[in-house]
Amino acid sequence: MIRFERIEDLRDTARGAVLLGTGGGGDPYIGELFVGEQMRKGKCPMLIAPEDVADDAFVVCIGGIGAPTVLVEHLVSEALLLRLLARTEALFGRRVDALISAEIGGVNSIFPLALGAISGVPVVDADGSGRAVPQLEMTTYSIFGVRSTPALVMDELGNVVCLDTISDRATDELVRPLVTAMGSTAFGALYPMSGKQMRQSAVLGSITLSRRIGEAIRLGREAGDPFTQLLAYLNSFAERSAHLVFDGKITDVERATKDGWHQATVEIRSMRDEADVLTITIRNEYIAAYRNGRPIAMVPDLISILDRESAEPLTGEMLGYGQRVKVLALSADPMLRRPESLEVLGPRAFGLNSDYVPLEELV
Amino acid sequence: MIRFERIEDLRDTARGAVLLGTGGGGDPYIGELFVGEQMRKGKCPMLIAPEDVADDAFVVCIGGIGAPTVLVEHLVSEALLLRLLARTEALFGRRVDALISAEIGGVNSIFPLALGAISGVPVVDADGSGRAVPQLEMTTYSIFGVRSTPALVMDELGNVVCLDTISDRATDELVRPLVTAMGSTAFGALYPMSGKQMRQSAVLGSITLSRRIGEAIRLGREAGDPFTQLLAYLNSFAERSAHLVFDGKITDVERATKDGWHQATVEIRSMRDEADVLTITIRNEYIAAYRNGRPIAMVPDLISILDRESAEPLTGEMLGYGQRVKVLALSADPMLRRPESLEVLGPRAFGLNSDYVPLEELV
Repeated sequence: MIRFERIEDLRDTARGAVLLGTGGGGDPYIGELFVGEQMRKGKCPMLIAPEDVADDAFVVCIGGIGAPTVLVEHLVSEALLLRLLARTEALFGRRVDALISAEIGGVNSIFPLALGAISGVPVVDADGSGRAVPQLEMTTYSIFGVRSTPALVMDELGNVVCLDTISDRATDELVRPLVTAMGSTAFGALYPMSGKQMRQSAVLGSITLSRRIGEAIRLGREAGDPFTQLLAYLNSFAERSAHLVFDGKITDVERATKDGWHQATVEIRSMRDEADVLTITIRNEYIAAYRNGRPIAMVPDLISILDRESAEPLTGEMLGYGQRVKVLALSADPMLRRPESLEVLGPRAFGLNSDYVPLEELV
Repeated sequence: MIRFERIEDLRDTARGAVLLGTGGGGDPYIGELFVGEQMRKGKCPMLIAPEDVADDAFVVCIGGIGAPTVLVEHLVSEALLLRLLARTEALFGRRVDALISAEIGGVNSIFPLALGAISGVPVVDADGSGRAVPQLEMTTYSIFGVRSTPALVMDELGNVVCLDTISDRATDELVRPLVTAMGSTAFGALYPMSGKQMRQSAVLGSITLSRRIGEAIRLGREAGDPFTQLLAYLNSFAERSAHLVFDGKITDVERATKDGWHQATVEIRSMRDEADVLTITIRNEYIAAYRNGRPIAMVPDLISILDRESAEPLTGEMLGYGQRVKVLALSADPMLRRPESLEVLGPRAFGLNSDYVPLEELV
């Protein structure tokens, strides 16, 4: 077990989480402030390696549910977080041995750390997607056999809803309007699992991955070149590859909210050649990038838009006309590229009319 | 305890329930068919008088939730009803001693009888409004101290949601979108209460009232004048009064669905004097009637539109241009006229800009 005690580490993790959020999942900045405050008071989250969690330990996903923009603006109270834990333990009739993230990308990377800090319950260095995903049935928990329910959803006012559904798709369909009725922000405890199930279904080591990404950007900045350092780190894994696929200026952002999705198209033009255009399709997350019409990266591989100078990762909400950016593509965790994952997480699941082609074959 | 065994009684009850539904609550016809089939097989619901329910008995409201039109078209399965009961008993960790209606008006008058027939659990001769009401916090249970939750909502597919809310208004706000996500039809167990609480908060004797209303119409028809017989029965109670307030032809029905409400205005013209017009405002139920602009009846008093010949009560969905109808106004059960009831059930609660004036002062 590692005591997560350096504010620097927390900041790095939050920065890395935005990159892994691939445009979605929200900005974990407020969560970072909350955890930082706890750490300054000596309440540091304990990080536990997946292999150190007992087979029969009770692990549960704790997170915010709802519109990321609302979650971002929202300071969570200690009382609320502790109530969420108490209600979860009451529902399952047992102590929670470890917390885990549903997705490392975005605000939900920090949520378990926040509850971990104030409750002392350790947080597993793993998550359920290695990125951000828009629907509950798209997590690796779901894909590799852990059910999202029995689950608990509560709001700030104290309304508590427990769900027991026939599928994780059904959970998603019921939770979504429920959270809207709760004022677009709610807090949930989902995917109750054993330590053994966690090791079979989670993307392992993702808090560390997130922290090291943020650290590479920070150290690179200090050394004068964040991109080189970031790429070097991301390409240090045998089974993954990262590429800078574009460099340019945002010339158009078209947004729409359709069927509850944040839909957008971002157009980025090369500053050297006006005719050279990268188009990114957003459906909550960045789901595909096309260079002059030709696909260059697609889900579940990760696409990140970074500030051109500082390499600060940008969420979809942060994008604006005129921004100078670089676009990074990162191959997804190998778990997300298995056939059973591609079925629920491949381009067709997001409404694209294309089979999945791995990033390495496109760039 | 009375064995509810005559098909005639069932039909009368369903007919009376439409009258008490005051335009809303849906048509209990399908429920009537279901219970009738059970009765023919010898499975008759047992009706228990409120005073015969033990103080510490466990009583729970069982009903359909959602769009009445969907509930109407929907044949409920025995398996589903029994699952609802089993899940309710599991949630509360005890046997259900008696079932009760949330509202006697419309489909939910029959629902407990349906489950009562197949499970053998007795049904209390009472309900939570003596009419139909559009929101959970408008029941007399709510007004007189029984909380709607812990409650259970389930759909046909097997999804089960338990709620524990801070107010019955909150329950309503959360259940409404949930039921929409469940395909607009769901089944619920709400207002868990003791026998003692039931006697303090329910409108008593309402299944019998409903049956006797239906019977008066039927016997009146056989004798050639359903209205006289119906009025005579409704005016036989010291504390209530009924009046035929209009006789005419429907000349306009304007419908709209606004903020989840079925909103409509019905215009009925006298056949003797074209200038003599009754206008009824519908907000799920008939909430106010105006004769040539002057109010003549308003919530919580009951307004019913009946076929001019047969005195068959008509729900709001059944109304159409050219129909010849008579309009009946019936003073609400005295429980609904108490100040605490008028606060949540008076005209202002339905968006009308008027204080409550009792029917007797208006006609």
